[in-house]
Amino acid sequence: MSLQRTVSILGATGSIGASTAAVIEEVTARGDGEITVEALTGGGNITALVDLVRRLKPRFVAISDPDRLADLRDALAGLPTQAGAGPAAITEAAARPAGWVMSAITGAAALDPTRAAIERGATVALANKECLVCAGPLLLAAAAKTGARLLPVDSEHNAIFQVLDRPERMEKLTLTASGGPFRQWSAERMAAATPDQACAHPNWSMGRKISVDSATLMNKGLELIEAAFLFGTPESKIDVLVHPQSVIHSLVAYCDGSVLAQMAAPDMRIPIAHALAWPDRAAITTARLDLAAIGSLTFEAPDLIRFPALRLAREALQTGGFAPAALNAANETAVEEFLAGRIGFLDIAAVVEEVLQHWDAGGHGAIANSPSSFDEVLAVDAVARRLALAAAARRRAA
Amino acid sequence: MSLQRTVSILGATGSIGASTAAVIEEVTARGDGEITVEALTGGGNITALVDLVRRLKPRFVAISDPDRLADLRDALAGLPTQAGAGPAAITEAAARPAGWVMSAITGAAALDPTRAAIERGATVALANKECLVCAGPLLLAAAAKTGARLLPVDSEHNAIFQVLDRPERMEKLTLTASGGPFRQWSAERMAAATPDQACAHPNWSMGRKISVDSATLMNKGLELIEAAFLFGTPESKIDVLVHPQSVIHSLVAYCDGSVLAQMAAPDMRIPIAHALAWPDRAAITTARLDLAAIGSLTFEAPDLIRFPALRLAREALQTGGFAPAALNAANETAVEEFLAGRIGFLDIAAVVEEVLQHWDAGGHGAIANSPSSFDEVLAVDAVARRLALAAAARRRAA
Repeated sequence: MSLQRTVSILGATGSIGASTAAVIEEVTARGDGEITVEALTGGGNITALVDLVRRLKPRFVAISDPDRLADLRDALAGLPTQAGAGPAAITEAAARPAGWVMSAITGAAALDPTRAAIERGATVALANKECLVCAGPLLLAAAAKTGARLLPVDSEHNAIFQVLDRPERMEKLTLTASGGPFRQWSAERMAAATPDQACAHPNWSMGRKISVDSATLMNKGLELIEAAFLFGTPESKIDVLVHPQSVIHSLVAYCDGSVLAQMAAPDMRIPIAHALAWPDRAAITTARLDLAAIGSLTFEAPDLIRFPALRLAREALQTGGFAPAALNAANETAVEEFLAGRIGFLDIAAVVEEVLQHWDAGGHGAIANSPSSFDEVLAVDAVARRLALAAAARRRAA
Repeated sequence: MSLQRTVSILGATGSIGASTAAVIEEVTARGDGEITVEALTGGGNITALVDLVRRLKPRFVAISDPDRLADLRDALAGLPTQAGAGPAAITEAAARPAGWVMSAITGAAALDPTRAAIERGATVALANKECLVCAGPLLLAAAAKTGARLLPVDSEHNAIFQVLDRPERMEKLTLTASGGPFRQWSAERMAAATPDQACAHPNWSMGRKISVDSATLMNKGLELIEAAFLFGTPESKIDVLVHPQSVIHSLVAYCDGSVLAQMAAPDMRIPIAHALAWPDRAAITTARLDLAAIGSLTFEAPDLIRFPALRLAREALQTGGFAPAALNAANETAVEEFLAGRIGFLDIAAVVEEVLQHWDAGGHGAIANSPSSFDEVLAVDAVARRLALAAAARRRAA
């Protein structure tokens, strides 16, 4: 069977975008499919973007920086690809007729283009966490209306998706967590942790923001929220299990005592290939899992005292409404402050907790209210960032 | 959704039969299904069989011993259940109209009744290993003709069945093995092992014959043959992985690098419930898997030098034809001789190897010939037992 796809990649120049391009090229080179690329989008790296244009031959390419359209057009000289720049061009890329869209733009900037792809009924491979965390119910309602399908690319959610054959018989989802670089550190030692120490992830090579989220376990908290929306699962049915080797990517327990799991070497091409070929599977040459060589897999319960971010995420999910969006924005700001050396590692969760606890008293509306529009979500995001900056400043002064 | 089944249990008084009865009773007690029992069969234990008759209310019950029909009828006095005795009555039980049949009779005696169930197109939950090992191609051809479905109940094959959603994209099946009680023993120490030592299985409580097979790893060899037939998989694509905790019951690797696995506490009600409810799942109250409590799962490659039975099974599968049936029969005889204290532990594999190696020279027909009938399979079984007895006697004398 040959894979037939017309695809667009939103966020093509990042690490997920590069892996998606590699998977497309391998499937094509093997003769296992015909994959037409409709559109690519990137941030400021025109060189990387034009390299991808030469390799994947899209019809349209867009960069987010509106001031660099002329530079992009110069770099594309002689190529038949149309170009655009600025947020509207990114959303146009998502709106163009590709049946499969990789949503891999980082942060809240992904919201509008992802919504555009969903609103025209595309199959959306979702590598961006913020979309579902901040606007899960809105995006799912849009998808239900158009029949758009969301395929998770995060390794944990993709793992669950691979083994969730009977959702109505599911008893528990278990997200595995590496535990991050501070898994065995005392709170005292964590208090003095530097950004470089927090970014030294044991298993995955990732950007600095998500590396810090792995160190606080906020990453797992955001994934917990994402899983709750994506699979329609109540918070009480989602567990987190620390598994330092990151071999088992997640597990699904059923009512008959069976637990199904997906495992793999840590390579994002694996969940990307799964989302691209689903419901089929595509052959790719990743490192194969060798359990005899690995020898041992270990497991432990997460320590919610040393890693309060996980508790905060659970509470935000229970609160519902704007709480997950506020949690996410406050966390992004706090992590930036930490990476800039302005607050300590333990201050990250403290800032987030302060923002959430004082929200209702601050006159920003009840945090438990459900957002009725994406604009409301973005407004809450902005307020949370402002409150988090203020909280960080107070901690710095103290 | 409520489960509707008419079932028969062949081998109801054994351990699998008891677990099947427990699952049926729990599903019924929960109001999750209406399960009518058509027929039960048992060996000599009339008390246990009549207890099951009172609980499950079958229309027909049969015992294998033809001389005990009067005893069975006496014990059934006042109950509306019809009774039969002897091999023909067992096969009659299998032939009666139940849509789902548990095939849990031990050994070659299961062949005829299992065939009867397959030939009328029933869904057969297969807990008996010998049927497929000895007559795999014949049974599969019969099933293909009638549309009968074989659902594996062996925990390893059931695990594979649960995660083999795309067989055509499967790259490798991995059967896990506990490694048995002699996993860390030297060959010298194994040479002096007693039957009680061989039967001390670390994870499962089983009969003595299968416990010895676990100690030699012949059990895994027979499972390898079973898997090859059941899933239509060449020997080269089936691996064996020693995993002493027996938590991961088996794994399927796909062409995209994903490995799917089924895990569970060691309780045969889990695969039985899966086979009973398939393609749905039924809620049962088994112990739930708690990986944080277990802490660690370990893996190692099997040692084919200390455990030659695994190599012999691979060779028999490669040879094909009558070789798996001869391997199985020679092994059964050798294990009996070992349990009776007449040969040593290491003699078991040596006897099997001798039977297979000298088969063609012995004038019993080429072992690679494909059996054309179940009678031919039974004839080979008898020859292999005779040759194994002779080989065992020579080893005793030496």
